[in-house]
Amino acid sequence: MRDFSPAEMVKRNYIFDTIKSVFRKYGYQQIETPTMENSATLMGKYGDEGDRLIFKVLDSGDYLNNNSSKKNNLFEAIIKSIIAEYIIKEAFSEPHEKEQFNLKRKKLEKVKSDWLKGVATNTALLEEAGDDLNEYIIDPKHLTPSISEKALRYDLTVPFARYVVQHQNEITFPFKRFQVQPVWRADRPQKGRYREFYQCDADVVGSNSLLNEAEFILIYDEALSKLGLTDFNIKINNRKILSGIAEIIGKPELIVDMTVAIDKLDKIGLDGVVNELLTKGFTQADIDQLEPVILLKGSNTEKLDKLKTTLASSVIGLKGIAELETIFTYLQSFSLNKATVELDITLARGLNYYTGAIFEVKTNEVAMGSIGGGGRYDDLTGMFGLKGLTGAGISFGADRIYDVLEELNMFPTTSNQTTKILFCPFDAAGETYALPLLQQLRNQGINAELYPAGAKIKKQLDYANNKHIPYVVVIGSDEIQSGQLTFKNMQSGEQQKLTADAIIAEVTKA
Amino acid sequence: MRDFSPAEMVKRNYIFDTIKSVFRKYGYQQIETPTMENSATLMGKYGDEGDRLIFKVLDSGDYLNNNSSKKNNLFEAIIKSIIAEYIIKEAFSEPHEKEQFNLKRKKLEKVKSDWLKGVATNTALLEEAGDDLNEYIIDPKHLTPSISEKALRYDLTVPFARYVVQHQNEITFPFKRFQVQPVWRADRPQKGRYREFYQCDADVVGSNSLLNEAEFILIYDEALSKLGLTDFNIKINNRKILSGIAEIIGKPELIVDMTVAIDKLDKIGLDGVVNELLTKGFTQADIDQLEPVILLKGSNTEKLDKLKTTLASSVIGLKGIAELETIFTYLQSFSLNKATVELDITLARGLNYYTGAIFEVKTNEVAMGSIGGGGRYDDLTGMFGLKGLTGAGISFGADRIYDVLEELNMFPTTSNQTTKILFCPFDAAGETYALPLLQQLRNQGINAELYPAGAKIKKQLDYANNKHIPYVVVIGSDEIQSGQLTFKNMQSGEQQKLTADAIIAEVTKA
Repeated sequence: MRDFSPAEMVKRNYIFDTIKSVFRKYGYQQIETPTMENSATLMGKYGDEGDRLIFKVLDSGDYLNNNSSKKNNLFEAIIKSIIAEYIIKEAFSEPHEKEQFNLKRKKLEKVKSDWLKGVATNTALLEEAGDDLNEYIIDPKHLTPSISEKALRYDLTVPFARYVVQHQNEITFPFKRFQVQPVWRADRPQKGRYREFYQCDADVVGSNSLLNEAEFILIYDEALSKLGLTDFNIKINNRKILSGIAEIIGKPELIVDMTVAIDKLDKIGLDGVVNELLTKGFTQADIDQLEPVILLKGSNTEKLDKLKTTLASSVIGLKGIAELETIFTYLQSFSLNKATVELDITLARGLNYYTGAIFEVKTNEVAMGSIGGGGRYDDLTGMFGLKGLTGAGISFGADRIYDVLEELNMFPTTSNQTTKILFCPFDAAGETYALPLLQQLRNQGINAELYPAGAKIKKQLDYANNKHIPYVVVIGSDEIQSGQLTFKNMQSGEQQKLTADAIIAEVTKA
Repeated sequence: MRDFSPAEMVKRNYIFDTIKSVFRKYGYQQIETPTMENSATLMGKYGDEGDRLIFKVLDSGDYLNNNSSKKNNLFEAIIKSIIAEYIIKEAFSEPHEKEQFNLKRKKLEKVKSDWLKGVATNTALLEEAGDDLNEYIIDPKHLTPSISEKALRYDLTVPFARYVVQHQNEITFPFKRFQVQPVWRADRPQKGRYREFYQCDADVVGSNSLLNEAEFILIYDEALSKLGLTDFNIKINNRKILSGIAEIIGKPELIVDMTVAIDKLDKIGLDGVVNELLTKGFTQADIDQLEPVILLKGSNTEKLDKLKTTLASSVIGLKGIAELETIFTYLQSFSLNKATVELDITLARGLNYYTGAIFEVKTNEVAMGSIGGGGRYDDLTGMFGLKGLTGAGISFGADRIYDVLEELNMFPTTSNQTTKILFCPFDAAGETYALPLLQQLRNQGINAELYPAGAKIKKQLDYANNKHIPYVVVIGSDEIQSGQLTFKNMQSGEQQKLTADAIIAEVTKA
């Protein structure tokens, strides 16, 4: 996990503040959810791998004994583990051994049941496990739930779904919310992947208007253009079109294999895709139908026109085309800054989750994975019992955007988050002289510092350099007497004698 | 733990943004440290109670078995607990029982030692514990370190100290940093106390200039005045003066009891303080000396003058007075907005930590505990091996400030974080008509929304009301034909027909 230095924070704030201001401009409102959620809220939402990567928080206090309902859960976990081992042993053993394992397991289950009733003692329980204690492995799957009730947020989506369901009576729908908070994953740290990182999401729930999708494209365009990117591409596709294609080929059950394969076109080329499709159960005839779709060329309108012919007999496919046409029609009323929008039929993204339009954003200026993505989903809150609430959302990959701006050297050189001017006194008299000037500048809204008297000027200038302070004022006895202060531009090295008023005027206007 | 709604976030951001902008104006730079620190970094820094309240994070993966150095630590924890029980039993038992407990413990220690060497099996270990398993309690003190390496940040101070030591070669001293991040405490939740809350700290390390203390007073003054407080008091004292007083009375060893008692003057009155002092070992003669100091009246200068006489023979006391005089001298060169600064000899605050000036801020407008505090300390980083680095810091109590502003109804009614104007179309034609206007306003930096076509106007106006959007534009076929749109001020209820240009001009200037 990372510390962020002052210089890094200025850059990170620049990215987050820019994105937040654009979210707000489009009517999205910020919320925050707690770092810890009940484990039950998170577990089972991200697959087995996700469950494993969720950080669990130890219950506080005497977590093994305090809570009577948990008392002895440790023993229960031990015995459960041993029983589980016997079930596995039984399943994978030769017939003549099966009975022995089965018997052993039944004895364990009996003593466990007695123990749960309070009839058998802990000792009896452990003694029944006998020699197995030598080699058994306690499975955290059994122990964890009894010693940990809370877990750290794994993403912003599930907590948001929980929030919507919990606060549904206070929320005005359509609910447009954004959220910028860290999430945690117990992953092996590696370059560009961190155990703690920020997510930056905007979602609208309770509106099926495709205006939302169009505005997401505007948000991407405006935020990334504001950050200085000049050449980036927003790819768009629609889950329903992918369904339509699988339907036309007559292999709707293979939609996942199909999209996983064609999603790799960029990386493995057409031959690679075809080979993969053949191994997954598609015939050459299927591929003959698929190929023109995969290789679709031309403007977005041309692509949609061709798709209309191809998918003419698929209701869902045509619905997907109509949705994209509506989005493109909305976009005609708006002008984009720097983004290009491209229909890409090979774009897949989290198929099981999205149900309508899907987005992915890439910059052409640097080799880098996607810096944003999202789409429409039809059942976000269903997992918490609130059915039928449609939604759509996007996220920005803040860490990657940071790396892009760093690589392109595109972070602004000045910031209102850093100090603009430093007063460097030769001695206590210089310090006293500077005090009212300091306050005058601050009253004008200028970030200003006075280096406390007692340090060599060299050290003070080093301080200014290291903090990237653009202006310094050196004040010695000559300066005080003449009223002409030494004003130095640290970037150009230029130095001049100016009155205090002139310096204030200079720095205020700069 | 709390969710923060959009309305709450606007208010919280208002407080944090105001404080941050003032920190920056005084040259403080933001850093962030990770949510999780190594447990070793945090444990033992906040006393036993603190250790108990630190949230520990379960190691990821198969935390009981994966790491060979941890293997069987669970058993070790069990046996350690049982041995500890016998030591206690032995200590508190009758002579004739002592031997029996001692014998039992020795046997346990023998088998544990054999087990650690790999000679005894797990079963042997657990069997030796025998019937004690029925009633023993596993102590989390033993188990926790073997299953949890990381813990959640408990405050911002200790991680900051760790940061300074770790990055000492990259840091330019004096290092002025601020930090606004959540912290976690496994406390019983109660009104006004949360398990997750934000702290808001600024500290300078590596500068012993008292200009820093003076600037902290300016920061409090500017930030709280900007937030709208008009009547608040910054109390100041100096740890060295308190030492001097204890020295003069001849009871330096009772300084903690003395300050704890006089700190209560507000609550229990002079009689109460005197009674407490008498029970703590002070004589009536001591109290006769103390009383005039406790009841010190007059301006800050008058108080200091009197103290100079009282503490004339205490070197450290006079040093404390001189420090305060220097701070007051600095303040004469500045003008304060709304704050009053008051020397309060009864102010104590975390004595073991602070070594120079100490601060506490209270508002007079609402009954509320302190909304800020801080002081100078001489050995923050010593706990991580970097000695002799002096520092001073303050913090703002953001949750309390929130409550104060809420109670005084002092949050601004408008914010650039919320939507300023909503377009309400009667139908799809109205929606299309609104699209370019929407973009025009957004291009001017105005937060603007269009309610997607298809909802009743009543519902759209409710949406505007609930989101506190001040202006709406209703667009039906009449409006489109005439070009005169219905512009409504949602606060005044006033409604007028205006052209699109007039509306844009109106909203942009408002």
